[in-house]
Amino acid sequence: MKVKEVVDRILTACDTPQIPETCDQLMAGDWDCEVTGIITTFMATVDVIKETIAKGANLIITHEPTYFTGLDKTDWLQGDEVFRGKQNLIVRNKINIWRFHDHMHMIRPDLIYVGLNKELDWEKYNLLNDPHCYLIPTTTVEKLSVFLKEKLNVKAVQIIGNKQSSVERVGFLVGGGSLGLGSEHMPMELMRNKQLDVIVGGEILEWTLCAYVRDAAQLGLNKSLIILGHNRTEEVGMKYLPAWLERLFPDMSISFIEAGEPFSYL
Amino acid sequence: MKVKEVVDRILTACDTPQIPETCDQLMAGDWDCEVTGIITTFMATVDVIKETIAKGANLIITHEPTYFTGLDKTDWLQGDEVFRGKQNLIVRNKINIWRFHDHMHMIRPDLIYVGLNKELDWEKYNLLNDPHCYLIPTTTVEKLSVFLKEKLNVKAVQIIGNKQSSVERVGFLVGGGSLGLGSEHMPMELMRNKQLDVIVGGEILEWTLCAYVRDAAQLGLNKSLIILGHNRTEEVGMKYLPAWLERLFPDMSISFIEAGEPFSYL
Repeated sequence: MKVKEVVDRILTACDTPQIPETCDQLMAGDWDCEVTGIITTFMATVDVIKETIAKGANLIITHEPTYFTGLDKTDWLQGDEVFRGKQNLIVRNKINIWRFHDHMHMIRPDLIYVGLNKELDWEKYNLLNDPHCYLIPTTTVEKLSVFLKEKLNVKAVQIIGNKQSSVERVGFLVGGGSLGLGSEHMPMELMRNKQLDVIVGGEILEWTLCAYVRDAAQLGLNKSLIILGHNRTEEVGMKYLPAWLERLFPDMSISFIEAGEPFSYL
Repeated sequence: MKVKEVVDRILTACDTPQIPETCDQLMAGDWDCEVTGIITTFMATVDVIKETIAKGANLIITHEPTYFTGLDKTDWLQGDEVFRGKQNLIVRNKINIWRFHDHMHMIRPDLIYVGLNKELDWEKYNLLNDPHCYLIPTTTVEKLSVFLKEKLNVKAVQIIGNKQSSVERVGFLVGGGSLGLGSEHMPMELMRNKQLDVIVGGEILEWTLCAYVRDAAQLGLNKSLIILGHNRTEEVGMKYLPAWLERLFPDMSISFIEAGEPFSYL
């Protein structure tokens, strides 16, 4: 089966409305290349590409960009040694990289949240009439942070607010969702409208949601923020994607390679 | 002296070109209010406002927003309990808040970097024909991280790359500068053009600079990233701002209140 047939079958299965200017493009490779195996990952880093080659696969389905900006433009990278090194690795080994981002989030249910709910066993708590909000058994910010840190294998959790606060109404904005997806105040409006005790998030900016929650806590309101990072909140969606793909490609070798949290800490 | 006279005198001293649509606005208070004392801070959080009141001052000069978005719009905050609580505190105590951001960065030298250079004693290393780049005595990523963690009192430093890498060419993009200031690839172009071994940054997104540096390190190139956060890289500019203001207002009480790193860690 060729790359084009794999991607077409995935898009047909998604059955989402047409997305104009989607980032879900073939970032490297050739539509006519015969697929030897599929790898799913959060990001096609150099190490993920090397491991793909070692496994004998040649189609990487990545959630995030390959070339360091939202739309994977490469004009500004001409002559760049990082780009050249990565591209050489890709071209020499005839690796194909297709991005599966917008359609993954647009399909219902959102396939990233499908993986997250499986990993946390939280589907049963999805009770607040919003796919990003949960009503969980009453706990504290600290205990919830410990649970998430262990379940999602996070090296360091950032917390704003009082760790001993009671929480049961939780918003979970994975990846860049906690930035607001083009609307700086969306996460704060979600917190207000759904009367959330805590938001668990991926990416943050210190002057938006962080500032709001810090002020709320300093005013004595029961609001907190637990930050796990982009990779840690979304990679779990790519971990469970092979199970969804196997139904479409029963005869294909399909596996997940973890890109991993990019940071070490000091 | 009234709020208006204080701000006018500061803007005259800046002597920057006119900035259209600047965020440097009076966010709270009254231009005609008599100033009892000036406080400088990274962000006029609820706790900073309370401490300002306790000190008997009534004009806060803040670098970052008061109302949780870049331009401090408040239309979306009507009826919000966090906004109401903060605004009540401000109004009841007749606090004035003026934002000093764009002009602070536009004046030459940039007043945030003035504070940073003083705190690190790095002005002498500013040798790469760029105000954001330094040539420091050869060290390692780990040793540089330890130095910065101690000097800037950072709770947790995030690192990408090899901690044992040798570094001497350093880019330092404070605050939101490491996001690229509207150009996602600016920090990577700076790294390439100035042949930087490491960028020290404030805010990050995992799919841009982080991804570039991780790939570079995985390719064996000598590139690293040290992330200190927005508050930790810019508050130092506000710490040294009273020294600059005292020349303009020799008879005024002026002091710095630390907003502080917003996070705790687990």
